[in-house]
Amino acid sequence: MPFDIGGRTLESRFFLGTAGYPSPEVLREAIRASGTQVVTVGLRRQLSGNGHTNEFYKSIRDSGAHLLPNTAGCTTAREAVTLAKMAREMFGTHWIKLEVVGDDYTLQPDPFELVVAARELAADGFEVFPYCTDDLVTCNRLLDAGCRILMPWGAPIGSGQGLLNPTALRTLRQRLPDVPLVVDAGIGSPKDAVQAIELGYDAVLVNSAVSNAHDPATMARAFKLAIEGGRLAYEAGIMAKQDMAVPTTPVTGRPFVL
Amino acid sequence: MPFDIGGRTLESRFFLGTAGYPSPEVLREAIRASGTQVVTVGLRRQLSGNGHTNEFYKSIRDSGAHLLPNTAGCTTAREAVTLAKMAREMFGTHWIKLEVVGDDYTLQPDPFELVVAARELAADGFEVFPYCTDDLVTCNRLLDAGCRILMPWGAPIGSGQGLLNPTALRTLRQRLPDVPLVVDAGIGSPKDAVQAIELGYDAVLVNSAVSNAHDPATMARAFKLAIEGGRLAYEAGIMAKQDMAVPTTPVTGRPFVL
Amino acid sequence: MPFDIGGRTLESRFFLGTAGYPSPEVLREAIRASGTQVVTVGLRRQLSGNGHTNEFYKSIRDSGAHLLPNTAGCTTAREAVTLAKMAREMFGTHWIKLEVVGDDYTLQPDPFELVVAARELAADGFEVFPYCTDDLVTCNRLLDAGCRILMPWGAPIGSGQGLLNPTALRTLRQRLPDVPLVVDAGIGSPKDAVQAIELGYDAVLVNSAVSNAHDPATMARAFKLAIEGGRLAYEAGIMAKQDMAVPTTPVTGRPFVL
Amino acid sequence: MPFDIGGRTLESRFFLGTAGYPSPEVLREAIRASGTQVVTVGLRRQLSGNGHTNEFYKSIRDSGAHLLPNTAGCTTAREAVTLAKMAREMFGTHWIKLEVVGDDYTLQPDPFELVVAARELAADGFEVFPYCTDDLVTCNRLLDAGCRILMPWGAPIGSGQGLLNPTALRTLRQRLPDVPLVVDAGIGSPKDAVQAIELGYDAVLVNSAVSNAHDPATMARAFKLAIEGGRLAYEAGIMAKQDMAVPTTPVTGRPFVL
Repeated sequence: MPFDIGGRTLESRFFLGTAGYPSPEVLREAIRASGTQVVTVGLRRQLSGNGHTNEFYKSIRDSGAHLLPNTAGCTTAREAVTLAKMAREMFGTHWIKLEVVGDDYTLQPDPFELVVAARELAADGFEVFPYCTDDLVTCNRLLDAGCRILMPWGAPIGSGQGLLNPTALRTLRQRLPDVPLVVDAGIGSPKDAVQAIELGYDAVLVNSAVSNAHDPATMARAFKLAIEGGRLAYEAGIMAKQDMAVPTTPVTGRPFVL
Repeated sequence: MPFDIGGRTLESRFFLGTAGYPSPEVLREAIRASGTQVVTVGLRRQLSGNGHTNEFYKSIRDSGAHLLPNTAGCTTAREAVTLAKMAREMFGTHWIKLEVVGDDYTLQPDPFELVVAARELAADGFEVFPYCTDDLVTCNRLLDAGCRILMPWGAPIGSGQGLLNPTALRTLRQRLPDVPLVVDAGIGSPKDAVQAIELGYDAVLVNSAVSNAHDPATMARAFKLAIEGGRLAYEAGIMAKQDMAVPTTPVTGRPFVL
Repeated sequence: MPFDIGGRTLESRFFLGTAGYPSPEVLREAIRASGTQVVTVGLRRQLSGNGHTNEFYKSIRDSGAHLLPNTAGCTTAREAVTLAKMAREMFGTHWIKLEVVGDDYTLQPDPFELVVAARELAADGFEVFPYCTDDLVTCNRLLDAGCRILMPWGAPIGSGQGLLNPTALRTLRQRLPDVPLVVDAGIGSPKDAVQAIELGYDAVLVNSAVSNAHDPATMARAFKLAIEGGRLAYEAGIMAKQDMAVPTTPVTGRPFVL
Repeated sequence: MPFDIGGRTLESRFFLGTAGYPSPEVLREAIRASGTQVVTVGLRRQLSGNGHTNEFYKSIRDSGAHLLPNTAGCTTAREAVTLAKMAREMFGTHWIKLEVVGDDYTLQPDPFELVVAARELAADGFEVFPYCTDDLVTCNRLLDAGCRILMPWGAPIGSGQGLLNPTALRTLRQRLPDVPLVVDAGIGSPKDAVQAIELGYDAVLVNSAVSNAHDPATMARAFKLAIEGGRLAYEAGIMAKQDMAVPTTPVTGRPFVL
């Protein structure tokens, strides 16, 4: 079940976002319960004070998870590249979740700026995790630009709407069998995560669905188990859908006699 | 997380069907991997010989799971009642999964025969688990007839089509908050099971999706984990879907400085 | 394109409900714009005064449409039978849309009371149009009881949710090829009506989607055209869905030269 | 109901593709039955001989419809621009349906090449109808490049899968209220067309669903009527979906007395 991504071998297919938790303590509990090995963090986080900040990073460091800084809030390739370089210095990692938002309302990725930024960052030695749309051509451009990982969206960030276009996601998986694919954004509950994993996605990134739950730590554990289940199902071979009913209990034979 | 059903307290929300496995050994492994506490067994099973039969029941007995005999293959209340009584003697349990099939093609429950059989069996001391349609009126009739549990279908038996009418299933859950509800039939992969559990269903019954998997034991474990995850999510409070994007990483504040 | 139902040959596949219009005049315009040949009317209509009542019936009589009285508001077979007999006398028609509601919240049909009432009314010479669930066994029971037409629901009355279970509706059509089938309840816009007609349903009955529209007469005409289109499509042979893209414009040949 | 697009005022919201018909005669009948005012034609059409070609163009000229040449089969901006210029000379129109396919399997639009080609063609006086993806950022780039019309796909060309991501299409409509929007590709039956029109799309372009029908002329008329109906519904104000049942026939009052 371990898989390779960004030069590392991971057990957990559950990437966790760290924004919007009620408190650093709840975040710490959620990280622990999630079993995640990759946590994202925004460089532009709004923090009320240094005390919180320190506690926040301590939570993450203590978890042993890999840090995946993101460029949330950037709207141009230039901004994103600058922020990515700051992140590399500050966090000591060449991993970057590249977000270049092209619309304030849907917060959707800008395919054009994304490719420009990805090319520059990949050439500069970054391992780029691009938050991108689900269309194959954009994804191929990102690969051409030097990305080795893709993070297509399921639905708008924070919407919890699940996978709006499973057909597109299935096509990506079929056409890019060797690229680590992570569904990023839109997942609202474990059902959505399991759907992505059953489609063969390597991992999912979740934030709001955990941080907005009534009980984030329990929700983190819920996703952990469901994602593990989804992956096992993928490996075990999911039955094909049948058009109509097939009796599971054969009844053509003689009544059973002990 | 334990719940009460049929006079027993269970930990596992995963009921497992025992038909159609490649071999008794595979069945045994699947039962073990599933962690199930309730296995269904058809009285009219088609068995090739006594050797297999004995091994089959030994597998089930050894698992420690409760036996839930079913009346698969019956098309009238009368047949089902007769078979239920045979099952009670043979298996030493007053639990009965009541199946009265009203159509050879969809294998769908016959609401009318079901109510008649349920009334007679409940009066005779059975704990009736009726495999039924998803309409509220039929479900209420079954409760009036003495059922204390309902097992609405998600889709035709063995079809793996998932939950064809989630709205109907949600309505049942909302209107019958105190009745143990189990989705029976139609579940094709853990995603479907998680969906049912997130709707608040108490358990799911799965057969084909496990027995038809390339690796049934792994699939059984997949369902186990996913169902546990789905239930935790239900308890943790699933976020409401948002119409549009909500930034999870707030960017209104000043750039983060360590 | 004409079809036979209840002993009559009709051109229009659009049955119209007459409740909830802003005024009798709007109703009259909607009936005219719809081209309907069958209008339903509730015997228990809440009317503010006799003036309205007379105008209401005049609207319907003038349209030349067949009247299909309904038993809306009944919750037992007994009530429905009584009301049906009153309707026959008052309206001079043996057609009756049989509604026996089994739940105040979903207003869903009660399969059990429905069968009882249908049997009695059919034996008494009524042409029964039962508003029923979408499950095949209930539908078969209604046919056994003497119904020659079925009106399964698409979704709860007045909800506008469309066809909640198209698979169930498709099964009904496949299994009952010779029975006139009308989708009743739940249709929210012409899209839903077209979907039903493309599935091979003989007609649809719509009320709220017309009466609640900002402009009911225009909406009535919208449904009229869409339903005609849907029926033509059904007759013309709808293409099978393809798994993937197929070039419609072949490009293997030489560039076109005039 | 008339609308403006590309400098012309049209009555019909049904654009028709001309590829893949059994014969020029069938095509002629389909065009006539469709009432279309815009027909697309591929420059690279594979034609078996000049006789057919002449007959083909005569069919189109006789219909009086506007010709919308397409660049089907192009995979680079350069190719598409060249072909567009040829088309302008050959057909005497500055309208061009810009297709630059980025993937041989899904035949999906290439957002990047599309923008490059659109910019050049718009600057050169073309009215560009770009066949594009459904993501808002790409659409905005095309508008910035000089397009005044957008033709997002519903599903892969020729697949008949309908609208795979209605949420994305709805977002486009909401965010670009003043841009003529046409759903291009993927429509399998009138139901899909009506759905697009009810979402507020100005028109739909259909080819395979008509040319592959058993009876293309009847299917063309089916789409014509359904699309007209869908548009009227949009104008009449579609009811909001209700969570649960609302009685259309009020029954709280006294029984009706004539």
